[in-house]
Amino acid sequence: MHTFTGNHILSVDQFDRAAIEQVFAVADSMQPYALRQKRTTVLNGAILGNLFFEASTRTRVSFGTAFNLLGGEVRETTGMSMSALAKGESLYDTARVLSGYSDIIAMRHPQAGSVAEFAEGSRVPVINGGDGANEHPTQALLDLYTIDKEQRAMGGSIDGLHIAMIGDLKHGRTVHSLSKLLALFNNLHFTLISPIELGMPDSIVSVLEDHGHKVTITDQLSGSVDADICYQTRIQEERFTSQEEANRYRGRFRLNQDIYTKHFKSNTVIMHPLPRDSRAEANELDNDLNLNPNLAIFRQTDNGVLVRMALFALTLGVENLVSQYDQTVVWHSNKSN
Amino acid sequence: MHTFTGNHILSVDQFDRAAIEQVFAVADSMQPYALRQKRTTVLNGAILGNLFFEASTRTRVSFGTAFNLLGGEVRETTGMSMSALAKGESLYDTARVLSGYSDIIAMRHPQAGSVAEFAEGSRVPVINGGDGANEHPTQALLDLYTIDKEQRAMGGSIDGLHIAMIGDLKHGRTVHSLSKLLALFNNLHFTLISPIELGMPDSIVSVLEDHGHKVTITDQLSGSVDADICYQTRIQEERFTSQEEANRYRGRFRLNQDIYTKHFKSNTVIMHPLPRDSRAEANELDNDLNLNPNLAIFRQTDNGVLVRMALFALTLGVENLVSQYDQTVVWHSNKSN
Amino acid sequence: MHTFTGNHILSVDQFDRAAIEQVFAVADSMQPYALRQKRTTVLNGAILGNLFFEASTRTRVSFGTAFNLLGGEVRETTGMSMSALAKGESLYDTARVLSGYSDIIAMRHPQAGSVAEFAEGSRVPVINGGDGANEHPTQALLDLYTIDKEQRAMGGSIDGLHIAMIGDLKHGRTVHSLSKLLALFNNLHFTLISPIELGMPDSIVSVLEDHGHKVTITDQLSGSVDADICYQTRIQEERFTSQEEANRYRGRFRLNQDIYTKHFKSNTVIMHPLPRDSRAEANELDNDLNLNPNLAIFRQTDNGVLVRMALFALTLGVENLVSQYDQTVVWHSNKSN
Repeated sequence: MHTFTGNHILSVDQFDRAAIEQVFAVADSMQPYALRQKRTTVLNGAILGNLFFEASTRTRVSFGTAFNLLGGEVRETTGMSMSALAKGESLYDTARVLSGYSDIIAMRHPQAGSVAEFAEGSRVPVINGGDGANEHPTQALLDLYTIDKEQRAMGGSIDGLHIAMIGDLKHGRTVHSLSKLLALFNNLHFTLISPIELGMPDSIVSVLEDHGHKVTITDQLSGSVDADICYQTRIQEERFTSQEEANRYRGRFRLNQDIYTKHFKSNTVIMHPLPRDSRAEANELDNDLNLNPNLAIFRQTDNGVLVRMALFALTLGVENLVSQYDQTVVWHSNKSN
Repeated sequence: MHTFTGNHILSVDQFDRAAIEQVFAVADSMQPYALRQKRTTVLNGAILGNLFFEASTRTRVSFGTAFNLLGGEVRETTGMSMSALAKGESLYDTARVLSGYSDIIAMRHPQAGSVAEFAEGSRVPVINGGDGANEHPTQALLDLYTIDKEQRAMGGSIDGLHIAMIGDLKHGRTVHSLSKLLALFNNLHFTLISPIELGMPDSIVSVLEDHGHKVTITDQLSGSVDADICYQTRIQEERFTSQEEANRYRGRFRLNQDIYTKHFKSNTVIMHPLPRDSRAEANELDNDLNLNPNLAIFRQTDNGVLVRMALFALTLGVENLVSQYDQTVVWHSNKSN
Repeated sequence: MHTFTGNHILSVDQFDRAAIEQVFAVADSMQPYALRQKRTTVLNGAILGNLFFEASTRTRVSFGTAFNLLGGEVRETTGMSMSALAKGESLYDTARVLSGYSDIIAMRHPQAGSVAEFAEGSRVPVINGGDGANEHPTQALLDLYTIDKEQRAMGGSIDGLHIAMIGDLKHGRTVHSLSKLLALFNNLHFTLISPIELGMPDSIVSVLEDHGHKVTITDQLSGSVDADICYQTRIQEERFTSQEEANRYRGRFRLNQDIYTKHFKSNTVIMHPLPRDSRAEANELDNDLNLNPNLAIFRQTDNGVLVRMALFALTLGVENLVSQYDQTVVWHSNKSN
């Protein structure tokens, strides 16, 4: 079995199915704390180094909140430390120094491979919070956890699911990593819907097929898709050579309640990595879906806190101690209602 | 009676006199914690989302300190989250996501109405820390609390006071909101001193007159003003079309010890929303007033912490629990001397 | 004896030998907390105002971590508060306001003398975290503490040491302050190695000689230096009028394992204020030294946390209370292995 205690979390490639299930079981146990039914002091006195060398408000705050919910403190940095870099400091040196200031580090950096390079110099465990176009494992885990949890609520599980992925599947780090994790489960059907030019990379499709999953590729959202999950993504306009070219795709895969009703089942779960573009000309997920109980996009971000709590607890070896340090929540909370 | 528990605080219009008096009573009870005579752990484990989408060091730190003094943790963001906005995320979505990361939110944003819009999407109470030219209710409450406290120290109260407001009364969000709150009290006399072009808006003057208060409007600081409170403001140069035009007003309403002695009573309380412009050419409040015991400007900012503690305690429903969680302060404090 | 409790720490000039030894004794006692063998709650509820008006990631996080390790909370600001400054606020006013928000302040500011000016307005103790070209006393203290600790590990002490300082000794705030502190000890030998144009200022050399220390000045690293400490610094290229001029010095005092073996003893301790320039053309300390057990540069930054913990404890008067508030560390730590 995978040992989390004291180790880095850098890539989805580190996870096998047993490790995933372990994370999910611990994430489930974190729910009462996130809902403010109780709180824990298990990490009182521990320090997270929340090092965001690239800005990402929601991911940064999610990591910090997860650590606070376990009772720990957070020291933080946002944006590149230009002075040290300009003076030619290596990532190894930065890691040696900053790892002296905390018990565990969550790190985001714009450069692919940078977090793994940093981890080599670090004297404490490092969790990758996104390294450029490369990896963002906690996002993939929270997406997978959401799929699992939504299906469990309906008496199901991940095995056997039909998952539709829609939009720009070529550039989306999110759908690549999620696909790699899903590949570890059994008997899935993937329907990949995108403009031909923005299709899922062959390397990812191969991973899915090599694991025996069924893969359907199309450039049209047509007929009944019959999917259990509809994972919608953003058309990444900045990747196109001209606005004119990008405009060819804009709104092509928009989803609203009418389109949902036409193509999907009444219980198809709608997901999106967020932020969604709510402007009329993009409108990947129309606001009229906010009333649809299957819209899981805000449950995804809530689950992100649970998954990050689980990863912190496992990495610091306290996953079985948390409830021994339970305390009562004495303030009013809208969440525990 | 107003119910604070679980509700947003967005505007001074939410407050009636009973609600104000409730806030002030709780603020009074916070004094021993701010003076470090004791500390409390009532909010241990609670998380404030301190979301400053517009920079404001003192307001941001004041909110954060107030929450720490109650025992809570603070997760923070400063400046616009450009990436999510550039990708077209709505304030509703931002609120749904970020409200999953904390128990209560204090928010500042440059756009009028933004905080109320955010609050509609939030699943936890939101306190408005300033939304552009619109509202800054905690500033108005701390100003009012200061007036009340200064008068109580002299055996008086707000009812019956004579309040002079001086400077740019047209553009100052502060004096508008404060006037609305003061209007709820009885038998006040307002002397509004400003260049004619920078006078208090008619809508505010009407509120004061409709509540039966006496309003004197003048463009000269002359003779004996006989006011109990002198609320000085900054000439907001950036609102003028030219520096030449602005220079016509510069230094016109400066206050120093000589001018104070000439026009005011020996116990007239001097207030200012801060920061004051201490440069010689502006000099709204000369440094020679620092020795004047009636200069209340730093007591105002200290009172800001008490008022924000009170609002947090009331909104989270712990106002009667705070002292049950008292602890001894074991470190040396210059404040408790 | 020096009294720390309730007082500012602004300059190395405040320290005599007894005060230094007091700081070092307290710093030693902080080691078990930094190594996570235990934790303390002595400053639970205390608030540090970590005011970095100039960015410096490692110094800022080091101060914050030191305060967290003692159990306290941290409120922070990074970068100039442009709005208040643009509105002409004085440092005195800023200090009066912000000192109402914390129990103690650590402050960095780009302008020489600014921290002392701020301290005059502050109602709580202020620790100088660097004020431009002027002072950075906690860096000097951690350097001195490292020298002491490295020698103690070999059965020695500071008195009688031979210390080589290499590189740009003219512009380095670090070597100036460290020299002033070292001057308080007995019978030292300083070998100052730099290009003639970048030599140690006469004022510092005079301090060393006036205290009876031996000073050797040279522009060559040649022969056997026989030093106990090799304090390497960065050639500060930005101080030169042209890149061409700077290039005359680049690489001239680089140090790698071969050069170390040729000129130094087998137990000469290697120090550097960090960050080191690891680019090939500068290479002040080659990465091949990372395997050399005498490379103390990362022990320096670790020691920085201990020294800052000591200064916080002494200034808040809890240096003898810390261990009364000991708690068990329940999470796994690579540091306590």
